[in-house]
Amino acid sequence: MTIRITAFESSPDGGTGQARDMRVRWALEEVGQAYDVRYLSFAQMKRQAHYARHPFGQIPTYEDEDVALFESAAIVLHIASKFGRLLPQDTAVRARAISWMFAAQATVEPPVVDKETAHFQERNKPWHAERLPLMDERIDLRLGQLSARLGAAVWLDDEFTAGDLVMIGVLRRLNGSPLLEAYPNLSDYVARGQARPAFKRAFAAQRVRFEQ
Amino acid sequence: MTIRITAFESSPDGGTGQARDMRVRWALEEVGQAYDVRYLSFAQMKRQAHYARHPFGQIPTYEDEDVALFESAAIVLHIASKFGRLLPQDTAVRARAISWMFAAQATVEPPVVDKETAHFQERNKPWHAERLPLMDERIDLRLGQLSARLGAAVWLDDEFTAGDLVMIGVLRRLNGSPLLEAYPNLSDYVARGQARPAFKRAFAAQRVRFEQ
Repeated sequence: MTIRITAFESSPDGGTGQARDMRVRWALEEVGQAYDVRYLSFAQMKRQAHYARHPFGQIPTYEDEDVALFESAAIVLHIASKFGRLLPQDTAVRARAISWMFAAQATVEPPVVDKETAHFQERNKPWHAERLPLMDERIDLRLGQLSARLGAAVWLDDEFTAGDLVMIGVLRRLNGSPLLEAYPNLSDYVARGQARPAFKRAFAAQRVRFEQ
Repeated sequence: MTIRITAFESSPDGGTGQARDMRVRWALEEVGQAYDVRYLSFAQMKRQAHYARHPFGQIPTYEDEDVALFESAAIVLHIASKFGRLLPQDTAVRARAISWMFAAQATVEPPVVDKETAHFQERNKPWHAERLPLMDERIDLRLGQLSARLGAAVWLDDEFTAGDLVMIGVLRRLNGSPLLEAYPNLSDYVARGQARPAFKRAFAAQRVRFEQ
């Protein structure tokens, strides 16, 4: 079987593995599946051929012999289901892992992305400096709640799941930020994720392209 | 079996069914399952007992004899899987419906919520009027892409799925907005969703509480 994903030809993240293909690469490494990468320029991403794969003109996309998908968390969920890893068999734990996947994407990531978007689009506006604390508060609210729930646990549930993978993928956007460092249990949680052999292989794979 | 969900005791939406319990009610009506509602005040939502149910102190939550869940789209996915409706059997179509669920939550809804948040928190700030067009552009980008993909189709795939349910739940936040009305095929898509008998029953059920 050939698995093919798409990624940025030239990632704006400077090789730090912040683009969302990283989450898909990580999941594929966790389940031990090889994959091909089609690298796309920003111009290619705006062409009809790519919109057919991704209605919102983004990366990553995913194709195998059965499916053609978009949205990184949906792809991670498919990989977990297809290869029978990253999602526990127990119905309750499995459904909760999926809750964490949606929470990562719909509740934790938006204020983080919002600050990044403001940096790109509004940093020269007169209001930007004054809005920064507002944006930081919105991020901190979610981090504080997540930190309280995680407590001293290793993962969000008893074992590492697709929920942790997506959540750590989101939190990594704050690597080096005082916002994340204010919660040592979250920093440690991210570090545990990044120490997994599958993460390291995925990180190295996306990095190769950057170093070429 | 008893299904229990949580909802706002006093919803800020004025009975228009914009709170996210509406999406869960709609899904339960689509699969023909009765449910109880525990109404929570804002003070109750911030108590430990509710944080145990929902790590981010929000509504809705969902409990049945097997699971205790949070995040509306994760709940809709669980309902669809448990009762064997709203998700096609075909692997490819099923996985794509899940892509649409994540896209609705992670790609389409954030700029819509961002504008609502700015309205609540920044409308008296000197920059608010000048930022409105920026926020509208971010919403319009996603609506334009979704409109282009939907085209003249009735639903996002061949039949109504959980992906449509969540996407229409997101688009409904823009009911009455020129942003949505600029795309007649999206307005019509929302109207088709709202015309479904299951939607109408769910809407009436949440409305009763408001009218008391």
